[in-house]
Amino acid sequence: MAKRFSTETYVKGILAGDRVMLSRAITLVESKLFSDQELAQQVINEVLPHAGKSVRIGITGVPGVGKSTFIEAFGTYLIKEQGKKLAVLAIDPTSQRSGGSILGDKTRMEALSMNPQAYIRPSPAGKSLGGVTRSTRETIILCEAAGFDTIIVETVGVGQSETAVHAMVDFFLLLMLAGAGDELQGIKRGIMEMADAIAITKADEQNVQKARAAKAEYQNALHLYPIGPSGWVPKVSTCSALQNTGLDAIWQTTADYLELTHNNGFFEKKRRDQNLQWMYEAIRQGLEDNFYSHQQVKQQLQSIAEQVKNGQKSAFAAAAELLRLV
Amino acid sequence: MAKRFSTETYVKGILAGDRVMLSRAITLVESKLFSDQELAQQVINEVLPHAGKSVRIGITGVPGVGKSTFIEAFGTYLIKEQGKKLAVLAIDPTSQRSGGSILGDKTRMEALSMNPQAYIRPSPAGKSLGGVTRSTRETIILCEAAGFDTIIVETVGVGQSETAVHAMVDFFLLLMLAGAGDELQGIKRGIMEMADAIAITKADEQNVQKARAAKAEYQNALHLYPIGPSGWVPKVSTCSALQNTGLDAIWQTTADYLELTHNNGFFEKKRRDQNLQWMYEAIRQGLEDNFYSHQQVKQQLQSIAEQVKNGQKSAFAAAAELLRLV
Repeated sequence: MAKRFSTETYVKGILAGDRVMLSRAITLVESKLFSDQELAQQVINEVLPHAGKSVRIGITGVPGVGKSTFIEAFGTYLIKEQGKKLAVLAIDPTSQRSGGSILGDKTRMEALSMNPQAYIRPSPAGKSLGGVTRSTRETIILCEAAGFDTIIVETVGVGQSETAVHAMVDFFLLLMLAGAGDELQGIKRGIMEMADAIAITKADEQNVQKARAAKAEYQNALHLYPIGPSGWVPKVSTCSALQNTGLDAIWQTTADYLELTHNNGFFEKKRRDQNLQWMYEAIRQGLEDNFYSHQQVKQQLQSIAEQVKNGQKSAFAAAAELLRLV
Repeated sequence: MAKRFSTETYVKGILAGDRVMLSRAITLVESKLFSDQELAQQVINEVLPHAGKSVRIGITGVPGVGKSTFIEAFGTYLIKEQGKKLAVLAIDPTSQRSGGSILGDKTRMEALSMNPQAYIRPSPAGKSLGGVTRSTRETIILCEAAGFDTIIVETVGVGQSETAVHAMVDFFLLLMLAGAGDELQGIKRGIMEMADAIAITKADEQNVQKARAAKAEYQNALHLYPIGPSGWVPKVSTCSALQNTGLDAIWQTTADYLELTHNNGFFEKKRRDQNLQWMYEAIRQGLEDNFYSHQQVKQQLQSIAEQVKNGQKSAFAAAAELLRLV
């Protein structure tokens, strides 16, 4: 078992930007031990006043779109050209099964992982989506307190994790491939409408024309959507991580979004709403964990659920029956 | 106080297609009295084996798109040309405030409300969205048991009620106006991606060209979306309730969808999944109702929520603190 420190030691280390202490605190956050969780909560509450001063960027896209390569190039650009301190986190519930399909292997972002201005943390393994998103959200707070001013949260655009990421970031970037056809089939419905920007990746060599055509097509499609409460019209651009092109335009789009939403108050409002949303979700999660771990409920849930599925029992009668058990 | 009957009387009446008894049973479902709720659950459980054999169609669109006029024309078409027995229900949480913006006034569907093959029930008043959706779902069961083979559930496409309707119907139809501009702004993000079909309304007189252009535009946009697990590619068509045109094509689209999804098993799977989803939602609702009505929670929720919003307390610490109170 790894060594534990006092709350004060973690807090001092994090606020001083000590990466080892930051990593150890994140390990606490990811731990399933109750004592670790208690300690983690104390640390988070202590550093909370020092957190929140970053830009949180969510990045998603199907496997094959080149997420790691893009983040490596974009992250290096942010550090070198924009003077940022960057933390890259990942939400990947599938990694429980596959053993880490995104960020599981830091060598996929070799340059970034060796950059002293970058901190890369793979997705926690062996947790449910709820557990992963909770850890990631708390990890954002720890990274911000450690002085990282830009947080990228990466996820795969095929499950439910994008909704979770969308609810914890300021700006949501969707990576897409040119040649809208089969590639698209993997993207979950609804993701396009969550995007603040779409970047067509791999816009290099013989792909340039196709990428430009895709850009026009998506831009047209996005115009059909209503403008959200941010007042922001989503932008589409092309980029190449291979040739380091288009990265500045993506950052400029992000900066434009931040300027608009800081000025019209949406940025602050969204952050506050997200905080509240997480509290209500944590309450719901706590209530459900408690209910579904109840002995009687565990015994009867499956047979009652079967009756509901088959239309032998109404959903509400079944719920009432189960609720009476606790 | 209205008269109450025995469970048997309600059940016999409903199964015999007695509209007065159907209406009274729906009133029980909508009642907030615990004794009424108990009676309603007994009635629902008794008629459940006779329910489920209908096609459930959700219809949404912003105010001004002509929903009532469309449903009046489409419903009359379904009865006259397709020999259907039609029930029209509504989910409109805003009617709590406005006193009934959709279906509140049956005279808006004058012909349909007088048709013996149609049954129209306005949205229950004075309930939360959760309460309205629950009542509507149980009302679907009662109407099906009373012999209605086609159920239309109407909602306004501006809030959260469409998601609730989407989760209780087989087929989801979005009504849109031609001239994609300001009209669109009212539609909530994500609705377009839930639609199995889009109908451009008011495609008559000087609007015909505009409607055709809009149809092409939406059809293109929908092609950019991934195909959902139903295997269905959403269709766009134009119609005019004024001139009774395009209604047959919309029904044909619905029939095509039903044929495809009956054949590939998606229809049955979706129904079973919806049943389960409603059970889990009813459990969640029950747990939350119980939690948030707890005296201590009521006393402290607001001040703790304020601290979370302002970033003075972490969302998870706050949730844990509140959960400890019960």
